[in-house]
Amino acid sequence: MSNRKSVAEFKKERERLNDIVMKYAGLETKRFFSLDSQVYREGGALPVKIKEMLGLVASLVLRCDDCITYHIIRCFEEGVNDAELQEALSISLIVGGSITIPHLRRAYDRWNELKSSEK
Amino acid sequence: MSNRKSVAEFKKERERLNDIVMKYAGLETKRFFSLDSQVYREGGALPVKIKEMLGLVASLVLRCDDCITYHIIRCFEEGVNDAELQEALSISLIVGGSITIPHLRRAYDRWNELKSSEK
Amino acid sequence: MSNRKSVAEFKKERERLNDIVMKYAGLETKRFFSLDSQVYREGGALPVKIKEMLGLVASLVLRCDDCITYHIIRCFEEGVNDAELQEALSISLIVGGSITIPHLRRAYDRWNELKSSEK
Amino acid sequence: MSNRKSVAEFKKERERLNDIVMKYAGLETKRFFSLDSQVYREGGALPVKIKEMLGLVASLVLRCDDCITYHIIRCFEEGVNDAELQEALSISLIVGGSITIPHLRRAYDRWNELKSSEK
Amino acid sequence: MSNRKSVAEFKKERERLNDIVMKYAGLETKRFFSLDSQVYREGGALPVKIKEMLGLVASLVLRCDDCITYHIIRCFEEGVNDAELQEALSISLIVGGSITIPHLRRAYDRWNELKSSEK
Amino acid sequence: MSNRKSVAEFKKERERLNDIVMKYAGLETKRFFSLDSQVYREGGALPVKIKEMLGLVASLVLRCDDCITYHIIRCFEEGVNDAELQEALSISLIVGGSITIPHLRRAYDRWNELKSSEK
Repeated sequence: MSNRKSVAEFKKERERLNDIVMKYAGLETKRFFSLDSQVYREGGALPVKIKEMLGLVASLVLRCDDCITYHIIRCFEEGVNDAELQEALSISLIVGGSITIPHLRRAYDRWNELKSSEK
Repeated sequence: MSNRKSVAEFKKERERLNDIVMKYAGLETKRFFSLDSQVYREGGALPVKIKEMLGLVASLVLRCDDCITYHIIRCFEEGVNDAELQEALSISLIVGGSITIPHLRRAYDRWNELKSSEK
Repeated sequence: MSNRKSVAEFKKERERLNDIVMKYAGLETKRFFSLDSQVYREGGALPVKIKEMLGLVASLVLRCDDCITYHIIRCFEEGVNDAELQEALSISLIVGGSITIPHLRRAYDRWNELKSSEK
Repeated sequence: MSNRKSVAEFKKERERLNDIVMKYAGLETKRFFSLDSQVYREGGALPVKIKEMLGLVASLVLRCDDCITYHIIRCFEEGVNDAELQEALSISLIVGGSITIPHLRRAYDRWNELKSSEK
Repeated sequence: MSNRKSVAEFKKERERLNDIVMKYAGLETKRFFSLDSQVYREGGALPVKIKEMLGLVASLVLRCDDCITYHIIRCFEEGVNDAELQEALSISLIVGGSITIPHLRRAYDRWNELKSSEK
Repeated sequence: MSNRKSVAEFKKERERLNDIVMKYAGLETKRFFSLDSQVYREGGALPVKIKEMLGLVASLVLRCDDCITYHIIRCFEEGVNDAELQEALSISLIVGGSITIPHLRRAYDRWNELKSSEK
């Protein structure tokens, strides 16, 4: 019914596009992409799981579906549970208002897909 | 030519996703969803028609297609006429600038679909 | 306690700055400024009062204090009453979320100043 | 050198303005304000400290100084340490880009004020 | 793999929707559409190529895919080269942060399509 | 009449705050600050003057006063003339809409201050 990509298709398309970015990108873009993965990396004061929830909340209030999908997948991989996810998404919803609801719906739809895949 | 959903498909998909949200949502999210319908409800100082136009303008300047579609449908149901709609959308366009034009186009496309359906 | 400008100071500063804009502005900027007043003008399908509330809601969700102040003053001049204002601002708050609260506070503070001035 | 309010003045002004909001606000606004404190409350799956960091990151990327100030104070009260704060703010900076830098500066300025006050 | 429209389809759909806008639009909307083309027009102090890069950077940081596609096509038509494009897009990326990355990817994907079409 | 900082005060306060950021900042923040100056640097395909205008337009449509002030000063230092500035600001205004007008006013006010200082 929904015409969204599966997690596998999402990852494949993301990789295809990253290859095109890297074909044209200069040094600054490459450095920024590298910084973008460093800030979520293990080994600092905050657990990766918390960092991914911070990234998810930021993506939700800024209303970027691809960013939300990415961080929902990462939250799932890092073992965020249903209760933690719903508290983080409640904060996003209250901060960002009803304008975020379509993105919230797609976030939970993706979460539901990931949860169903484990069974 | 366009790959957008029909009004019927839009409503069905919205309902499917709301069910998923409600499966995971905590009390605060449920309360927020309830507040979100209360503010547009009949019985206050402003007619529902005006409230829906306020919701439409807010959605347009914030550039959320699903929110625009929802309020365009509601405006249509509440009997907003062409002249009122175009004045409300002109204000959105001037406030929000050319960056809102792609959303304005889809808003009028949806309006046109709704108008054609009455005939 | 608050260091905000009075309505009179706000209008005076706005005029001073508009003079500077017009000193440098080209034809397109002048035309845009003219369009910006036309969309709120009397004589169309919607009453000016409603148009000003549309402008206020758009300004609130986009979080622009100067724009909010301007439309709050215009709403007051057009005879919007307390009940109508609070319904319009409730819609803005629910659409825009808690991130709009600081602006909502200043909107009501300005409204309160205007209401006090009539007595 | 800076003309910002102290933490005490910020809290006092916030309270003064909340009183004005409550004087005019309808039921929906009051309920929203109540929801806004519930989502950060103790007793759920995530510690209050983490919830406040989520609120801070959301406020930073949405670039709302008053919201940032509020959550910086709450993070400080909940015992967030320098390392945790800087990791959360790094994520905000990378997600939100250089447009957030002026707010990041004021966030650290406030943090520095709070740290200095403990000594 | 990607389900995006080709440049030809994008232009056709844009024209179809513009016809619908013009069917309903009032004078102010028409004037705004006209202003929107005037600001990028030849004959001023800045070359059209630079104006199109300004429009592209604005569209990128505001994260509007249709606007980005439009200006990417115009930049290509005006003879912007790879090095110029990547410098403009680096500035957008640094100003707008990682939240712009999905749009940056699609911008380069479109650029790559245009470059391939010349061969 | 206006309570804004002079260019000298703006630069001094900016430096004071940068020192505080650097006191707390981790490696990623430092690297981002460094990237942020690299993208505007001389030696690439686009002249510094154009890069600064790109930064100005991005700052205007995203409505960040400090960022606008910074790039207006840099545009002035790089020899942008009145005609070039007004064309760049017209594009920002049309893309971003009337919500950018308060920032446009302050941008021209700053420009006017800089122009007056040369005489």
